[in-house]
Amino acid sequence: MTENERVRYVPLKEAQCRVHGRTDKSQDPLPLFWNGSLVEVNVTGSELWIDLEVDYENYEPWAGCDINGAFLSRQMLMPGRYRLCLFRGMDPKKVKNVRFFRELQAMSEDDANHILIHGFATDGAFQPVPEARYRLEFIGDSITSGEGTYGALEEVDWISMFMSVSKNYAVMTSRALGADFHLLSQGGWGVLCGWDNNPHNNLPFCYEETCGLLHGSVNEKLGAHKPWDFASWQPDAVIVNLGTNDASAFHQPVWTDPATGESFEQHLETDGSWREADIERFRQAVIAFLKVIRKNNPKAHIVWTYGMLGYELTLPITEAINRYRAETGDGNTVFLQLPNTTRETVGSHEHPGAKSHERAAGVLTEYLRTVLEGV
Amino acid sequence: MTENERVRYVPLKEAQCRVHGRTDKSQDPLPLFWNGSLVEVNVTGSELWIDLEVDYENYEPWAGCDINGAFLSRQMLMPGRYRLCLFRGMDPKKVKNVRFFRELQAMSEDDANHILIHGFATDGAFQPVPEARYRLEFIGDSITSGEGTYGALEEVDWISMFMSVSKNYAVMTSRALGADFHLLSQGGWGVLCGWDNNPHNNLPFCYEETCGLLHGSVNEKLGAHKPWDFASWQPDAVIVNLGTNDASAFHQPVWTDPATGESFEQHLETDGSWREADIERFRQAVIAFLKVIRKNNPKAHIVWTYGMLGYELTLPITEAINRYRAETGDGNTVFLQLPNTTRETVGSHEHPGAKSHERAAGVLTEYLRTVLEGV
Amino acid sequence: MTENERVRYVPLKEAQCRVHGRTDKSQDPLPLFWNGSLVEVNVTGSELWIDLEVDYENYEPWAGCDINGAFLSRQMLMPGRYRLCLFRGMDPKKVKNVRFFRELQAMSEDDANHILIHGFATDGAFQPVPEARYRLEFIGDSITSGEGTYGALEEVDWISMFMSVSKNYAVMTSRALGADFHLLSQGGWGVLCGWDNNPHNNLPFCYEETCGLLHGSVNEKLGAHKPWDFASWQPDAVIVNLGTNDASAFHQPVWTDPATGESFEQHLETDGSWREADIERFRQAVIAFLKVIRKNNPKAHIVWTYGMLGYELTLPITEAINRYRAETGDGNTVFLQLPNTTRETVGSHEHPGAKSHERAAGVLTEYLRTVLEGV
Amino acid sequence: MTENERVRYVPLKEAQCRVHGRTDKSQDPLPLFWNGSLVEVNVTGSELWIDLEVDYENYEPWAGCDINGAFLSRQMLMPGRYRLCLFRGMDPKKVKNVRFFRELQAMSEDDANHILIHGFATDGAFQPVPEARYRLEFIGDSITSGEGTYGALEEVDWISMFMSVSKNYAVMTSRALGADFHLLSQGGWGVLCGWDNNPHNNLPFCYEETCGLLHGSVNEKLGAHKPWDFASWQPDAVIVNLGTNDASAFHQPVWTDPATGESFEQHLETDGSWREADIERFRQAVIAFLKVIRKNNPKAHIVWTYGMLGYELTLPITEAINRYRAETGDGNTVFLQLPNTTRETVGSHEHPGAKSHERAAGVLTEYLRTVLEGV
Repeated sequence: MTENERVRYVPLKEAQCRVHGRTDKSQDPLPLFWNGSLVEVNVTGSELWIDLEVDYENYEPWAGCDINGAFLSRQMLMPGRYRLCLFRGMDPKKVKNVRFFRELQAMSEDDANHILIHGFATDGAFQPVPEARYRLEFIGDSITSGEGTYGALEEVDWISMFMSVSKNYAVMTSRALGADFHLLSQGGWGVLCGWDNNPHNNLPFCYEETCGLLHGSVNEKLGAHKPWDFASWQPDAVIVNLGTNDASAFHQPVWTDPATGESFEQHLETDGSWREADIERFRQAVIAFLKVIRKNNPKAHIVWTYGMLGYELTLPITEAINRYRAETGDGNTVFLQLPNTTRETVGSHEHPGAKSHERAAGVLTEYLRTVLEGV
Repeated sequence: MTENERVRYVPLKEAQCRVHGRTDKSQDPLPLFWNGSLVEVNVTGSELWIDLEVDYENYEPWAGCDINGAFLSRQMLMPGRYRLCLFRGMDPKKVKNVRFFRELQAMSEDDANHILIHGFATDGAFQPVPEARYRLEFIGDSITSGEGTYGALEEVDWISMFMSVSKNYAVMTSRALGADFHLLSQGGWGVLCGWDNNPHNNLPFCYEETCGLLHGSVNEKLGAHKPWDFASWQPDAVIVNLGTNDASAFHQPVWTDPATGESFEQHLETDGSWREADIERFRQAVIAFLKVIRKNNPKAHIVWTYGMLGYELTLPITEAINRYRAETGDGNTVFLQLPNTTRETVGSHEHPGAKSHERAAGVLTEYLRTVLEGV
Repeated sequence: MTENERVRYVPLKEAQCRVHGRTDKSQDPLPLFWNGSLVEVNVTGSELWIDLEVDYENYEPWAGCDINGAFLSRQMLMPGRYRLCLFRGMDPKKVKNVRFFRELQAMSEDDANHILIHGFATDGAFQPVPEARYRLEFIGDSITSGEGTYGALEEVDWISMFMSVSKNYAVMTSRALGADFHLLSQGGWGVLCGWDNNPHNNLPFCYEETCGLLHGSVNEKLGAHKPWDFASWQPDAVIVNLGTNDASAFHQPVWTDPATGESFEQHLETDGSWREADIERFRQAVIAFLKVIRKNNPKAHIVWTYGMLGYELTLPITEAINRYRAETGDGNTVFLQLPNTTRETVGSHEHPGAKSHERAAGVLTEYLRTVLEGV
Repeated sequence: MTENERVRYVPLKEAQCRVHGRTDKSQDPLPLFWNGSLVEVNVTGSELWIDLEVDYENYEPWAGCDINGAFLSRQMLMPGRYRLCLFRGMDPKKVKNVRFFRELQAMSEDDANHILIHGFATDGAFQPVPEARYRLEFIGDSITSGEGTYGALEEVDWISMFMSVSKNYAVMTSRALGADFHLLSQGGWGVLCGWDNNPHNNLPFCYEETCGLLHGSVNEKLGAHKPWDFASWQPDAVIVNLGTNDASAFHQPVWTDPATGESFEQHLETDGSWREADIERFRQAVIAFLKVIRKNNPKAHIVWTYGMLGYELTLPITEAINRYRAETGDGNTVFLQLPNTTRETVGSHEHPGAKSHERAAGVLTEYLRTVLEGV
């Protein structure tokens, strides 16, 4: 390789860099906790490198890079501290917009998993990065983690490489609307409990921390458990896409904590209907979560979306929303059904494929346009 | 024209003819009341004519013809008694499946509007017409009347030729599933009241008659007001697509009957929310209609669909369904949102265009497949 | 029917009516000879009727109607003299653009087949109809006659109702470009001979007459054999789509005229290649036809298109074009391949379906845009 | 990272690995010269690493990886010797099909550019990799190098990252047909001369060497200039996609070699037509190349495709093919036009985008199916 002697190192703190996604911006190096978290720069020069520190125990992180809004790369990140070149050989005078993003969800099951950004190296100069005109926050499960958007149809392994933000309804919607976005999602989790009845695997419990579902001392030090400063980033809309795993729980056996013996189970009656006490605690979880979201996002339009993996809990979710609205008088919270995934649109691991994400993004984008733009 | 001397006249009663759509089968000639009503034959021979009697005052009826499942013609019907040739010059030995259908909704505003079938003329022989494997009943408004599926985008006249069943989500869904169908729809009508607050313009009031929204002595004689014999045709699913005009009513001025002085109005509060008493009587109308549907169709899967012209009443509709289910224990009644119409999918008169119908039919077909086929 | 007493009769000669397609404009009534021939009016008023005279022996004519550019109707025309209503109930003040068109090709095999226009009846006033910005002439076979664009896949009857201009690449292309169009086409015909080796079934022999392939005294009187006045309508481009039946002839047995004993045959060698003398007379037919087209259309861009039913004669056609160009120095004549029809795009009678026509129209439109608009 | 202690190193020579694309298989490490060159394994185990050696001067190589036929990653390769993990965490018992491929064309302008494969590391066992049922060879220019298939529309830099095989008509066609493929392509090159009239930049001169367009001692040692052993891999079809840069040359100024003063130019006459001597040497280049291809591939179906960036040389190419066929009697060589790229289908750098490649692949696949499968 011919060395470019004009390239110089720029620590992250000295770069004009916009950081997207919930993180602790006081950290150096900076962690990209959630899927869709990213660093964005506008930079002149012929080449740009990013200085990374990566580790994991079992589930390796993946990352991707967009240049001038176009998808260019997607790769498994090797462990260690190293530089990756993001572009080279480009017209040095032009400003290039570069977004280096985390493809993989925050991994509650791998305490060592992290992507840390130390800085950049370039022969160009950084330029300001303007904000987008809208801000969207998405809260979801494996669907929002993009599970199934990569990989062959027959794949059933639950591994990092089949999850993405590069083919993901939340990001497609944000791009179509010209919006910045935060994603908070975890595969298998619900609003009350996980797909297997584990009552700890719900998004509400960690919603008010920066990335509260991560464990371990490393993540602690990286600021994952710091209270999230909602005032720092008020979204125009909060899109919840939860309920799919809560529906699954009704069809799974009891969950028991091997350590404590604690157990939890959602039951069906013998006629196949939900046991009332169980569906009611699901509804209460929806109502409670809406209150938390509203408390922290007083002006946001809240949209509870549902349906990409089945419509089973449509009516309990809407009942909860109706009761929440009646109780609080909050008329700025609605329900939107997203089209179910079909044989034509399914991806790997029986999850929504890219076509299903595109279809859902179409319906959601059209809806949000009526709210945000009054069209 | 060279006369085909082998052609002979066959009165309708002597033809092996399946009649689709609610009508009074004892009538001779036979009226096609509703849009999508049709006569279907399997016939050999080289040609087939249909013997019609047509009239109207202001809104002329349109009809179309499918041959072997393919759309061949669509035309405005001239008034009078005459024969139309449906095919000619075909292989005389083969059996042709022919469906002559009414494109136009039943016209509550034109007492003289009718299509009557007297019989056929052919050089072939009629064969049995088997039933389809499913039966679907659709109850709706202008969307289900296919308003906007024909005509230029800029059209705003409310006239017959812009309505259809030949480009209509209900028929597309039925074809995709291999189902016979009944359509009951009226443009501008709701479940509680019409788009203009007219409280008489709702489908529930006429649901138990054959075609109860028609007026005048001619329709009376044709059997329009006879009680419908639900036992004669039990659908596998009843799909309701109402609420769009009820939503509109909240934004319209009071309706007053010039004759009686009777008035009706759905109100918005000053903050834009629904007045509780008004939205409650809407919900009650939904609940009451569900009870009537269930009474008459004890085993049908009931799907309340909504959304092709906006999602405004999604939550009140779901609340009504939830209350209906809680009150009756009927777990076989659900809600399904259909994708809204967009600038890309709109048709004439600001109504859903063919693309919007196709998209809705996709979502509905996929859903019904999971219910009917367990796929 | 309520009579509209303001409707008055307007003979064709008194209406401001543009006539499209080759015909003898001095005739009264006016014949619509070719598929795609049409009368176009801009008219105010609430309703419009057309006064027709129709006949045929074996192959009935079909017609359609567009209003404000949108397809509204398509129907088999009954024999006789009568009026059809084209629209009614429309806003009387607005100008409506109406195009009543012949769906069926000129029928060389039915001397009695004709559609004659006597006039209109309306309560409105006629307005000028401006010309389009381009003029396109298409010369072809069954593909350009739209055979296969209607009807079920399994249909194999050769009858009128499966042919159309309403789903036809030539018309799609013209619409996309904003062009007026003339179509000259005949199913089964070629540039040298017909699909069955009949050497009389070629378009060149009748190109310089108004509609020279029609027979019988009625057509004679209607002006079908009058020399066509090329000066009256000079196209911007002439699109030839011939060769498909010439390719077929090589695979068919000898044709023999039962009356005269005359015979004709295109031969394949035993290795499957074309006999050189036979393929050479095909090439000569292409060259000769190009000369005739050029003589009559000195400035037109000539495009020989080919491929929608197989690419077999691509190389002989291009060789003929190359030789024609070398011989004449005419650089304004080119070759364009259109995508073949596949299992996904086929229509009835193993002919291109609507999807195949759309795909071909896409390629042709894009090409013509580069020529006509320099884009 | 948790080390997997069962992973062991497997030198390439010991792995059951199929090598695709022209290369010198006696080399160790093995070079991937051409775009689309790849190593393919079927392997059990939970993880697989590849041991690479990469370098370049100015134009860095890119690579991608498919797993079980699905695209998983695409990345710029950093210089040096290192291992990349291709998958991890998968079901150890299942056989995974892995294809690690070169995205970037062979770089005639960068003597240091190379990707060398040393071996693999895995905890699994290699299984046999069966051959595909067909073999296709593609010879082309920037289109076949996939230039423009990645990157934003406004990009105009000529750099590695905008070229690909992962979105490339040649690979799409091969996948659709279930075919192994060899690609030989170079951006800016022609059959006679390059886009800038450089007469050395043509594919024919290097067709009989393994990768004859590469320069420098490193490539020499890697076997790039060894005669290609055509007997080792006889394709079912050879698809040429050349002519686009030859067309461009007519519109460019004279090319002059600064070192030798040698010059070359294709001229247009003042009326815009090709100078006959110049277009004739183009035709002769086509004829000569066809003879070389035929000599080396006696049974292959040869398809000269053209059109994705304009139809300008369609007629000279077909004339050359016709003359070649007449001269040699080779009836197994044809011409196929591919649809031009439009505003809707263009990619970066004014080259065909992914949609244009998909459209071309559709036409080409359908054609090859008729030849290879007789469908």
